Amino acid sequence: MSRMSDGRSRRAGRALATQLQKSRITYNLPVYDLLSEDALQRLHEASLRILSEFGIAFYDDEARSILKAHGARVDGDVVYFDPAMVREYVSKAPPEFTQLSRNPENNLPIGGNAVNFAPVYGPPYVIDADSGRREARLEDFVNFVKLAYLSPYMHHSGGTIVEPTDEPVDTRHLDMVYSHIKYSDKPFMGSVTSAENAADTVRMAEILFGSDALRENPAVISLINVSSPRRFDDRMLGAMKVYARARQAMIITPFILAGAMAPTSIAGTVAQQNAEALAGIAFAQMVEPGTPVVYGSFLTNIDLQSGAPVFGSPESQMGLYASAQLARYYGLPFRGGGMFTSSKIPDAQAAYESVMVMIPTIMARTNFVLHAAGWLENGLASGYEKFVLDCEILGMLHTWSKGLEISEESLALDSIREVPPGGHHLGTEHTLRNFRTAFYRAELFDYNSSEVWTDAGSNDAYARANKRVKQLLASYEPPPLDPAKDEELTDFMMRRKAELTNQGSR
Amino acid sequence: MSRMSDGRSRRAGRALATQLQKSRITYNLPVYDLLSEDALQRLHEASLRILSEFGIAFYDDEARSILKAHGARVDGDVVYFDPAMVREYVSKAPPEFTQLSRNPENNLPIGGNAVNFAPVYGPPYVIDADSGRREARLEDFVNFVKLAYLSPYMHHSGGTIVEPTDEPVDTRHLDMVYSHIKYSDKPFMGSVTSAENAADTVRMAEILFGSDALRENPAVISLINVSSPRRFDDRMLGAMKVYARARQAMIITPFILAGAMAPTSIAGTVAQQNAEALAGIAFAQMVEPGTPVVYGSFLTNIDLQSGAPVFGSPESQMGLYASAQLARYYGLPFRGGGMFTSSKIPDAQAAYESVMVMIPTIMARTNFVLHAAGWLENGLASGYEKFVLDCEILGMLHTWSKGLEISEESLALDSIREVPPGGHHLGTEHTLRNFRTAFYRAELFDYNSSEVWTDAGSNDAYARANKRVKQLLASYEPPPLDPAKDEELTDFMMRRKAELTNQGSR
Repeated sequence: MSRMSDGRSRRAGRALATQLQKSRITYNLPVYDLLSEDALQRLHEASLRILSEFGIAFYDDEARSILKAHGARVDGDVVYFDPAMVREYVSKAPPEFTQLSRNPENNLPIGGNAVNFAPVYGPPYVIDADSGRREARLEDFVNFVKLAYLSPYMHHSGGTIVEPTDEPVDTRHLDMVYSHIKYSDKPFMGSVTSAENAADTVRMAEILFGSDALRENPAVISLINVSSPRRFDDRMLGAMKVYARARQAMIITPFILAGAMAPTSIAGTVAQQNAEALAGIAFAQMVEPGTPVVYGSFLTNIDLQSGAPVFGSPESQMGLYASAQLARYYGLPFRGGGMFTSSKIPDAQAAYESVMVMIPTIMARTNFVLHAAGWLENGLASGYEKFVLDCEILGMLHTWSKGLEISEESLALDSIREVPPGGHHLGTEHTLRNFRTAFYRAELFDYNSSEVWTDAGSNDAYARANKRVKQLLASYEPPPLDPAKDEELTDFMMRRKAELTNQGSR
Repeated sequence: MSRMSDGRSRRAGRALATQLQKSRITYNLPVYDLLSEDALQRLHEASLRILSEFGIAFYDDEARSILKAHGARVDGDVVYFDPAMVREYVSKAPPEFTQLSRNPENNLPIGGNAVNFAPVYGPPYVIDADSGRREARLEDFVNFVKLAYLSPYMHHSGGTIVEPTDEPVDTRHLDMVYSHIKYSDKPFMGSVTSAENAADTVRMAEILFGSDALRENPAVISLINVSSPRRFDDRMLGAMKVYARARQAMIITPFILAGAMAPTSIAGTVAQQNAEALAGIAFAQMVEPGTPVVYGSFLTNIDLQSGAPVFGSPESQMGLYASAQLARYYGLPFRGGGMFTSSKIPDAQAAYESVMVMIPTIMARTNFVLHAAGWLENGLASGYEKFVLDCEILGMLHTWSKGLEISEESLALDSIREVPPGGHHLGTEHTLRNFRTAFYRAELFDYNSSEVWTDAGSNDAYARANKRVKQLLASYEPPPLDPAKDEELTDFMMRRKAELTNQGSR
């Protein structure tokens, strides 16, 4: 961002920051079940056949030994899972758990009716209206941590919100974990780039929370991607073993584009995803029974003309609902969805596609929503303006999730009687009692007349969001961190950076 | 639009026009019921109390006489409905019916599991990227009829897609009805601006379909707005009587902004809306038992800071689901939702808000979706680009509505087995069999890489849609219309224009 602050935006931003609420979503609305019981059963059985007959490759010797020791059949790299064994180990995973946060008010229930939003994860680029598209730096990473911290609708600080490409590959995981801890007091995600980096993450969490607390409840949740089709690579398995042994939470997510890594049909794609997720979940429970895991889904289709991924497609919506329903069937927390788009900027396409995923995400009662704000360009870029625009929709979904209250007060029959035919409710007692809290208000959406909007410069949502980002960053004030812990974390990070730099780049 | 055609766009447009399909939506997916049985019952009972104790004003002497003759209690302008009487007359309305179209392939089932999309209705302005915002003319009206005709995802030609402000107020209803008939072969809506204009509409439909056919099935469907709170005006009642006596279909729609025309709470707003809709529906059945009617809802909330309407709000979503559920409870076809926005241009706000309404619209299984494309600026403007962008989402919803097929072919287990871990499905037999029809493809959404997109001019969705509108209009070819009928219609229109012009402007 070119200009972060001025006096006016600083004040406005500070006012926004004071609105920070500890807003939890407990989804007590009906969940949308797309599939009939019979259809669900057929998907489940297809997955069991994939697991027992076709197998899943585990590219790690120790992992295969563990699997074999727990009853799996191993042939070369490929592991075959008997249905009874799948059932046995998957059932050891807890149906819900709590992720610790350094601010206990931000401790996060994961599972059941809890719905949690986390920022975009993974992009090497950032986009903002002032500078356009450029490689992400650590400064951008910190900015996004701040934006997530400042949003009352974001429950989690996330993980690799952007890749800090100006930091060395071998050590940037330390900068990322430290920045989450330093600039936010919301829960965060750990590094999965190697077993060593996972161990560094656990060590930093131990410094912050103490080793004992960490074994009671996870303080780190990490994203384990399956390299679909049917393949766990050595880096992910290395990280999995470290996190499971430390009883830290993992989101086991097959990353699947139907038509490329899975069949050109959603049913087959979901069956394959389900087999892959169950294999990872069972493995985690073999390493450490009771390890908190989330059933993950990252599922959409490719554009069959170009091979590019497509987001917000009707097919991806069906995949999302079916996946969530399977996770519920196994009694596991579910991760899926997000504000996805293929668009390069936060234009109409970006918004159409994002909501086309996000509403199914909430109505499937997704427990952990990664990429809930900021995603652009197939996940290659984090957008500053997209982030704050997406947060408006997250705010609306908070209100949506509260459901429709039917009570004497909300039915307001006295008020309806009091207003004559053709009258209005603007000044009724009922309106005066309720108007402050009645309706969600999106700060970034323009409700003015065309004339007022034109006089104000005909700014579109992108331009308005650009101003908002600057206000927010100017208003940011860090949550206090115990200086002794900060020093210990910094010392650890410096020591590890020295060690890793001496080892040289891998 | 400044330039409608060139050779290249004409060819491209023609190719698109040949894709015109008779695509019907039969929504066989689970419908989302937001309310418990108990909550639904409470809303129903609150409405009965409004009807029996608070009453509804009918500003038409003959209407009140009819209501009184059928057992209603009348006091001044206000009519009180006994619950048993409401039940009796509402139950006379058919649960579904078919609207005739001059192309019988476009005859439209309305009710049950049928979902139909119709264009935006009512705006006095148009917006396009070339000319900006300006008063709508008859030329614009005709252009939108053509765009609706060319979209395979639009089931209906609509009504007042824009107000042709360059035509005299007294006669423009004739131009609108004639343009729908002339430039499209999809079903259309009638004039409701007065009893006389409704009679003109019926007469034109009789010319086109014959009087006998018209009494068997409606050929006109018209939008009867309730002037909420609790008020039917003389113009609407005049049109209602004409259409009911001709057995033409009506959508009885309370137009309600919660916080202004109804309480500052969604429950009370829905209860009031329900009372108003039932009053109109019962009245129509008193005039002519069996008249096809649709239970209509146009319900959102105001921004309580400015008084402006807000679209896509979580509160409006709840209102939509609750309204649809009530219509199902009474066994009536339902109208609601649309691609609403407060935004002045098709930017991110417009798209966010539009989908925030449209997904609930489809998941509530709305039978008639007015404003399914083109709406901008609180309905004050029809957007050319917004129209074609919205149609992309309508296309996706067609695919969505087909549901998730679970079959041996779609599970594709042989194909999953055949592709080794880490392999791909791009060339499998299953993919080759399915790739042509597997996934919906949005023509206006960009799936290219950032580099390709930038080289092509960094066009956002608005700019791409602008090109598309020009291609479509350049490609338009009118559906053939029997010259004898065309002449009869034109003669009628000319005669009526002369009569109405001699009467002078009212």
